[in-house]
Amino acid sequence: MSDDPPVSLWPEPTALGPLTDLYQLTMMAGYVANGMDELPATFELFVRRLPKGRTYLVFAGLEQALRDLLGLAFSPGQIDALQRWPVFDAVDPSFFSWLGRLRFRGDVWAVPEGTVVFEGEPLVRVQAPLALAQWVETFLLASLGYPTSVASKAARIVAAAGGRSLYDFGARRAPGPHASLLAARAAYPAGFDGTSNVEASLRIGIPCAGTMAHSWVQSFDQEAQAFSAFAHLFPTASTMLVDTYDTARGVEHAGALDPPVRAVRLDSGDLLTLSRAARAFLDAHGRSAVRIFASGDLDEFQIARLLAGGAPIDAFGIGTELVTSRDAPALAMVYKLVELDGRGRIKLSSGKITYPRAKQVYRTFGPDGRIARDTVTLVDEAAEGEPLLEHVVRGGVLEPLPRLGEVRDRCRAQLESLPPELRGVEALSTFRPTYSQAVRAVAEELAKPYREATRAPDET
Amino acid sequence: MSDDPPVSLWPEPTALGPLTDLYQLTMMAGYVANGMDELPATFELFVRRLPKGRTYLVFAGLEQALRDLLGLAFSPGQIDALQRWPVFDAVDPSFFSWLGRLRFRGDVWAVPEGTVVFEGEPLVRVQAPLALAQWVETFLLASLGYPTSVASKAARIVAAAGGRSLYDFGARRAPGPHASLLAARAAYPAGFDGTSNVEASLRIGIPCAGTMAHSWVQSFDQEAQAFSAFAHLFPTASTMLVDTYDTARGVEHAGALDPPVRAVRLDSGDLLTLSRAARAFLDAHGRSAVRIFASGDLDEFQIARLLAGGAPIDAFGIGTELVTSRDAPALAMVYKLVELDGRGRIKLSSGKITYPRAKQVYRTFGPDGRIARDTVTLVDEAAEGEPLLEHVVRGGVLEPLPRLGEVRDRCRAQLESLPPELRGVEALSTFRPTYSQAVRAVAEELAKPYREATRAPDET
Repeated sequence: MSDDPPVSLWPEPTALGPLTDLYQLTMMAGYVANGMDELPATFELFVRRLPKGRTYLVFAGLEQALRDLLGLAFSPGQIDALQRWPVFDAVDPSFFSWLGRLRFRGDVWAVPEGTVVFEGEPLVRVQAPLALAQWVETFLLASLGYPTSVASKAARIVAAAGGRSLYDFGARRAPGPHASLLAARAAYPAGFDGTSNVEASLRIGIPCAGTMAHSWVQSFDQEAQAFSAFAHLFPTASTMLVDTYDTARGVEHAGALDPPVRAVRLDSGDLLTLSRAARAFLDAHGRSAVRIFASGDLDEFQIARLLAGGAPIDAFGIGTELVTSRDAPALAMVYKLVELDGRGRIKLSSGKITYPRAKQVYRTFGPDGRIARDTVTLVDEAAEGEPLLEHVVRGGVLEPLPRLGEVRDRCRAQLESLPPELRGVEALSTFRPTYSQAVRAVAEELAKPYREATRAPDET
Repeated sequence: MSDDPPVSLWPEPTALGPLTDLYQLTMMAGYVANGMDELPATFELFVRRLPKGRTYLVFAGLEQALRDLLGLAFSPGQIDALQRWPVFDAVDPSFFSWLGRLRFRGDVWAVPEGTVVFEGEPLVRVQAPLALAQWVETFLLASLGYPTSVASKAARIVAAAGGRSLYDFGARRAPGPHASLLAARAAYPAGFDGTSNVEASLRIGIPCAGTMAHSWVQSFDQEAQAFSAFAHLFPTASTMLVDTYDTARGVEHAGALDPPVRAVRLDSGDLLTLSRAARAFLDAHGRSAVRIFASGDLDEFQIARLLAGGAPIDAFGIGTELVTSRDAPALAMVYKLVELDGRGRIKLSSGKITYPRAKQVYRTFGPDGRIARDTVTLVDEAAEGEPLLEHVVRGGVLEPLPRLGEVRDRCRAQLESLPPELRGVEALSTFRPTYSQAVRAVAEELAKPYREATRAPDET
């Protein structure tokens, strides 16, 4: 049995410096030992391939990632502990005092949150001394991947719901309590109307919504009594969960209340049949204003099918599918060195080529306002269109960021700019950026010596 | 542009009270308003169905969940804010002072971490006043679901790796930085050997491991120079990443170093062919002690195939597949009222029946030491076998918990007790508990009035 001090996995935001892979620290020590730590470096973060079945992503999580990035530091206790790790035995102790003073003082360019993005496009560009830029790789990827997955899934669900209200009910199904906050923050700008997560609502300032649980109904001897007690106390939030025992009788009990309740919630069974029956019953009993709310492991495909079938559902609560992005729970998001000390860097690993040099993305639109082309260029190259990456951190100082409402507006406009073949839950087209002639020329130039070195004799 | 105060999504562990669904708070206010908040209640947490392709789960996350549970509270600022939400307009202000004093003072029984469990088995039983037990539902589910997913995935990967070393490389791919800590904490007891996550290692005290990134290799003009500089500084951690430009040449460069490096890491391409070629080259050049490390989006099926094909790989780094549990990123984990004020409670929602009354699980083993049967009984029922649920929180006080090493030992023994048809990555059998005669009788008794009420006239 344990007499250890309690372990807490809620780290202080001010001491997240070690929330990184060990190899970042060993490489940092190596850069310092070899006099390379101050070399100006550029890393770019991008998604190598979109998950199967996805035609676009909605970039999210940036505000929190940047705020945390600028707070990253090592506490004296962490430094003490690390210094005693055997792996660092040959490292000069001055590395650890340097580590103790480390803060992110670099520059960051990024695509604004809520932007629709595609594979192979730089989404974040970090320009900083080599050791500093290396340090933050793990944290940035961990901070941006999940929110982008959730926002992208949310956008698909929004598309399927065709204007009906959507609520994040995923607090209990998120990958840990902290992730539930990240999910709520990601879903709202993508078009969700609110969350059931009280902590998320308090922190982020997004609408909070809720109904009732089966346990409420079960706690009373009669369902009707449970409904009546709830409606009395919460007249503005009286959504009655009607499936605890028998849905048809639940709808009768909810429909009988006076004043009328706001909504009934269906959480199991055949939602098409049940919602039609509920609507018919409520309409026949003077309850046309009572809305129908549906939940229960719904995803964008089920929502689309329900609505195509004419299900009279006014609002959906979405949990698991949203907060786990169940069909595509991970993104192939990477962060790669593209330039060091003024020279381009390339990686040729099988199937994982990285284009060198600091880059920008220019987006052009057709006469219909739809995205026509994304072009990845060198940063100093002139190109047509709207540049996507903006300067968001200058010398370790955060530039003003858009408010959440602005992010939401941007996202709505971005989703409207999607070409028809990329929209909709059944779309399967792939959109790829074009790499400018200059980018391809630099890549070719850098790859040449390696290609020559590995060419078999009879190929020469 | 925003002039709002910075939002932090790293909540204080002492003010996680609102990390719950709004309906928990409205129901709590309802219980208080109706004089029901102190009724003794029992809720049980269980997994309704195992994900497709899974034959068992490894229960994980309990220690952190319980420590956080006992710290749950509302800060004065949170109370002030909530009190102004319109939804609570009709709620007596005394509810909010009550809420401000709320702490979890109930009892918890739980299956120990590292236990192999199956669908329909109570894993956690909360016995507390109704309002208190209701409050913690969301937090408990959010805290236990993700670690259990990761531990279960980890156990499958461990089974596939057949004793080879396994490292959690998932920090960057976890669903947010906090989840990376939960994942590291879940994977180690399930049989992983360590993590690359420095923060996780510092907090949890599990081994930390790392190699090098492509950016290290790219930062030097020559690959050989990059390897040499690293090996010199980290003689005990000299794993060389050999695929930045050309794997065969990378292996040559790594193999040439003196003293010999510890390992080479393959991160792309056909790992079977490459690992064989690397092994042959290293053996032919007096480097038989150099180990081969593989990584790159590997899952249990790929590992099993590689090893079945004779790939001479000594260790694996697993990221995405582990920390997202990609094939099964969500569990149908629920928390249901089963008893209130001494009376059983039942739920009959279509396809989601809940067995009433406080229950226990008894496990029996065959003569071969393998799990023979799990029986779900009423708590006061005598039964054969080992009871799985233990009393872990008494009146809001945590009982001593096993150390991490003990959890790991338990998990190993548990996995060894799996019947052959449930083991291995290709197993597809389903194991379900038996419900005792007494449990079924209570369920039948409670369901009867509802069944009669909804029976059509010609059925009577």
